[in-house]
Amino acid sequence: MPVAHTVSAYDDELRWLVRRLSEMGGIGEGMVADSVQALVNADMALAQRVISEDLLLDVAEREIYDRAVLIIAKRQPMAQDLREIIGSIRIASDLERVGDLGKNIAKRVIAVHTMAQPKKLVRGLEHLAELALTQLKEVLDAFATRSPELATSIRERDEEIDAIYTSLFRELLTYMMEDPRNITACTHLLFCAKNIERIGDHATNIAETVYYVATGDQMSSDRPKDDDTANVIATSPGD
Amino acid sequence: MPVAHTVSAYDDELRWLVRRLSEMGGIGEGMVADSVQALVNADMALAQRVISEDLLLDVAEREIYDRAVLIIAKRQPMAQDLREIIGSIRIASDLERVGDLGKNIAKRVIAVHTMAQPKKLVRGLEHLAELALTQLKEVLDAFATRSPELATSIRERDEEIDAIYTSLFRELLTYMMEDPRNITACTHLLFCAKNIERIGDHATNIAETVYYVATGDQMSSDRPKDDDTANVIATSPGD
Repeated sequence: MPVAHTVSAYDDELRWLVRRLSEMGGIGEGMVADSVQALVNADMALAQRVISEDLLLDVAEREIYDRAVLIIAKRQPMAQDLREIIGSIRIASDLERVGDLGKNIAKRVIAVHTMAQPKKLVRGLEHLAELALTQLKEVLDAFATRSPELATSIRERDEEIDAIYTSLFRELLTYMMEDPRNITACTHLLFCAKNIERIGDHATNIAETVYYVATGDQMSSDRPKDDDTANVIATSPGD
Repeated sequence: MPVAHTVSAYDDELRWLVRRLSEMGGIGEGMVADSVQALVNADMALAQRVISEDLLLDVAEREIYDRAVLIIAKRQPMAQDLREIIGSIRIASDLERVGDLGKNIAKRVIAVHTMAQPKKLVRGLEHLAELALTQLKEVLDAFATRSPELATSIRERDEEIDAIYTSLFRELLTYMMEDPRNITACTHLLFCAKNIERIGDHATNIAETVYYVATGDQMSSDRPKDDDTANVIATSPGD
C-alpha cells in the first residue's frame, strides 16, 4: 500500500517538527529559569551551563528550517499543513531568540556576581521571569492543542509583563541615582529585565503564529508591542 | 498560450515579493536614520513621524506573509524559488523588527529631549547608526543581486558594530557615574545604542537568509551573535 505508507511517512515528518519544537521550548524555558536562578544565587556554574546550552537551540532551529523546507518541496502541502510547517519555522526562530536572551542574562550574572545587588529588585526580576515563563509554557500548550482561544488570552496578558517591567525600570533608575556605586550592577539588571520583557514578546509572537496556524487568519495588529519604558523620565534626587 | 501566461503571472508574484521587501527596507532604513537625526537635533516632530511610520512595516510584513503562503500553496515551487519565498518571510520579519527598534529610539527622543545630553556620546551613537545602516543597505543589495559573497562579508563586519557598541556602553556608564543627574538620559541612550546594535544583528540575519536563498546551504553557525557588554564591569569613581 504505497499511498498509506506515504501518508504515514508524511505524518511522521509533521510529528517530528512538533516534537522538535516542543524540545526547543523545554530547553528555552529551562535556560531562562536557570539564568534567573543563577542571578538570584550568584551561581556561576549554573550561568556557565546556560551559556553552553544555547548551542542546542541554534542547531535545532537550523534542523527545523532545513527539514521544513524539505517537507514543503517533497509533499507540496496545502492549507493547514502548509501553515503549520511555515509556522514551525517562525516558532523555531522565536525559541532560538529566547535562548539567546537567557544566555545574555547568564553572561551578566558573571559580570555582576561579586557586586551588591538590591534584593528587592532581584526578587522583582524573578517575578517578571515567572510571568514570562508561564506565557512561554502556555503558548507551547496552545501550539500543541492548536487552540486559538488560548493564544488570544496569552497575547492579552503580555501587558501585565510590560507594566511590571516598567515599574522595575523606574526602581532601578532610582537605585542608581541614590548611589553611583550601584550603576554598573543596576545597568546589567536593567538589561536582564529588558531581556525578560522580550521573552514575553516572543511568547506573544508564538501566540500569533498559533492563531494563524489554527484559523488561517492573522490576529488583528492592534497590540501594543513596544514597552513603556521608552517614555520613563526619572529625576535624580539632586534635581 | 496558457502555460506562458501562468509562468509570467508566477514571475510577477515573485517580483512583487522582492519589490515589497525592497520597499520595506527603504522604510526601515529611513526610520532608523530619522530616529537618530531626531535624537541628535531633539526634533520632536521627526520623532513623531518615525513612530507613525512603524504601522507601514507591520502591514507590509503581514501582506508578504499572506502572499508568500498563497504563492507556495498555488505554485508548489521547488528549490531556489521555494527558498526565496520562505526567505522573503524571514527577511520581512527582520525588517519589521528593524522598524520597531527605530520607533523605540524615536520614543526615547521624546523622553530625553529636554535633558542635557553628552554631545560626544550622541555623536558616537550617530556613528554606530551609520555603520548599521550601511550593513542594512548592503544586505538589501545582496538580496537583490543574490550575492553570497556580499552576504558573507556583511556578516563578518558585524563585529565592528559590536566593538563600537561596547565602547559606547562603557562611556555611558562612566558618564552616569560622574554625575547622577545624567542617569536617566544616559540610560535611554544605552537602550538606543542597544537598539542600533540589534539592527546590525538583523542585517546579519538577513545576510544569512540571502546566503541560504542563493546557495541552498546555511552559513556556518560560529558567528558570535551576542554583544560583549554583558561582560562589562565598570567601577564607579568612588570605588
